[in-house]
Amino acid sequence: MKKVTVLGAGGWGTALANVLGKKGFTVYLWVRRRELCEELIKFRENIKYLPGVLITANVHCTTDLEEAVKDTNLVTVATPSSVMREMIKKISPYITPKTPVVSAAKGFEKTTLLRMSQIIKEELGEEHPVAVLSGPNHAEEVGRDIPTATVVASEKRAIAEYVQDIYMSPKFRVYTNPDVVGVEIGGALKNIIALGAGITDGLGYGDNSKAALLTRGLTEIARLGTAMGGDTMTFAGLAGVGDLVATCTSKHSRNWNCGYQLGKGKTLETILKETNKVVEGVKAAEVVQALADKYDIEMPISREIYKVLYENKDPKEAVVDLMLRSKTHEMEEVVIRSRDNW
Amino acid sequence: MKKVTVLGAGGWGTALANVLGKKGFTVYLWVRRRELCEELIKFRENIKYLPGVLITANVHCTTDLEEAVKDTNLVTVATPSSVMREMIKKISPYITPKTPVVSAAKGFEKTTLLRMSQIIKEELGEEHPVAVLSGPNHAEEVGRDIPTATVVASEKRAIAEYVQDIYMSPKFRVYTNPDVVGVEIGGALKNIIALGAGITDGLGYGDNSKAALLTRGLTEIARLGTAMGGDTMTFAGLAGVGDLVATCTSKHSRNWNCGYQLGKGKTLETILKETNKVVEGVKAAEVVQALADKYDIEMPISREIYKVLYENKDPKEAVVDLMLRSKTHEMEEVVIRSRDNW
Repeated sequence: MKKVTVLGAGGWGTALANVLGKKGFTVYLWVRRRELCEELIKFRENIKYLPGVLITANVHCTTDLEEAVKDTNLVTVATPSSVMREMIKKISPYITPKTPVVSAAKGFEKTTLLRMSQIIKEELGEEHPVAVLSGPNHAEEVGRDIPTATVVASEKRAIAEYVQDIYMSPKFRVYTNPDVVGVEIGGALKNIIALGAGITDGLGYGDNSKAALLTRGLTEIARLGTAMGGDTMTFAGLAGVGDLVATCTSKHSRNWNCGYQLGKGKTLETILKETNKVVEGVKAAEVVQALADKYDIEMPISREIYKVLYENKDPKEAVVDLMLRSKTHEMEEVVIRSRDNW
Repeated sequence: MKKVTVLGAGGWGTALANVLGKKGFTVYLWVRRRELCEELIKFRENIKYLPGVLITANVHCTTDLEEAVKDTNLVTVATPSSVMREMIKKISPYITPKTPVVSAAKGFEKTTLLRMSQIIKEELGEEHPVAVLSGPNHAEEVGRDIPTATVVASEKRAIAEYVQDIYMSPKFRVYTNPDVVGVEIGGALKNIIALGAGITDGLGYGDNSKAALLTRGLTEIARLGTAMGGDTMTFAGLAGVGDLVATCTSKHSRNWNCGYQLGKGKTLETILKETNKVVEGVKAAEVVQALADKYDIEMPISREIYKVLYENKDPKEAVVDLMLRSKTHEMEEVVIRSRDNW
């Protein structure tokens, strides 16, 4: 059976490797830390990142990157966004110019503000086949075969459909989308809004408040996303509102959890020290400030969350500042709407 | 202080009367049943429909419709959608052609397929000032002053802003929107998707499944809504995705609850017998089948929910039929997207 590769044995990488393994592929799951790799092989379970899920027999765990990617038919990168460039640099000697690379990481490179697919293309060449995979996909549920839908985006339709064919299963339904920018922006920015949703929940506000935050947050995401070249409609889809809802309303979300503890009064430093996982939204909040400035986009929610994270603003005060703005006669602006004919 | 009126003392009517009462208006809350009216006056609490919330002193409860609406500055109708026409007929002798009427009901007239604002205009004349109020607004939370955002839509900007001024408060933030059709469609159709969200939760599926259902459901709503003349962008706003999220993810929602019990195996008949409240989505599901046929719109999710409600389809089978459609290479269609250039 065809060989495919997943890089990174966090919860998401492990779940994706299992999806592919159950479809009958020979899967190589590359694991950075030797102890974790040995544990996965010994217990057939990723106790730390995806507890309770049996790793399928045809998933081979290895710390040897060459073994993992050589002669593979697909590389999916499921490492934290901060190490994407390093990973691509490392695999580049072992793959061909025709080996499709899929980013399953959600975030930006902090120093350059680049999206994940841009980094891959910078390292492998503009013509290299690249796709991104994103959607409302909690690893804990994908690992348990709970029905899930996701999106694969690529500038080239043939690549998107190639990846779709490899991943599609009765429990993991894959849609294609031509809008790489929109899908990546949706995935990266929802983590910031999820921090905000956690904050309002931690403060004890209700479902009305959270729905308002989520909706206004979606508008912000779409506003920046379209300025960066994304398609408005993508933000109304699985990688936009779908992922946003799943992240903001689920107990599985790390970003929501981090926000919840901020709302309960813990400091960011303490929270990050206590968790052993990467909270992508914390870094994304910083990058998005720079992007909002660069593209001259108003993003009041992201800005307040940034202030809570990095300027010690009281979360309660931030919510009050968002809700109680003194404006009257404010029309609901959803991305773009003209008042001219009203 | 100015007199304003709310018709209907369900949870939503009571909460809206309280919002206005706390702003200092002289509020007349019209109550259909004499016993309920006496109870509200005696206990200053709507024990059945909004328990635990003190009704503010300047809310006057009455069963006398003339007393309630004569010389009023605003009529808000918060009755079930099925009695909208009857209510408007009854108040028409007592109001002037300039008295703005706000629909706070979410649904359609079953026999005519008309929206609430259309019924009001049919009864009071095309030029009568009419607005609709809709958004992610659980009465239980609005009653408790939990920060909430909502939308007021009217074809006439001055009317929308008049209603906005009356309702706006630090805890109840009102946005205006020119798109009456979109706001009404969003409010009515989300109840159907909420039934579906309840069904998947009742069946024990997870957050991924629910997020997918909600996103694909939003697409259906927007597809029908734009065919009926609504603005696509409204569905990405508070009255669209906002209300949808609040309804699908909250324990307060009657529609979600009804679906949840369907998922657990109860029959619709038993569920409706046990609840003492109107479940708008059950009726809306029927109307939407007729609308989908009329406008020739594909609405697979609404159709499956209709089959569960009215044709005894097994909920589990309905979800399977939605998730496991055999199509491959399906592009994510969000309202409208062209594949031409891909």
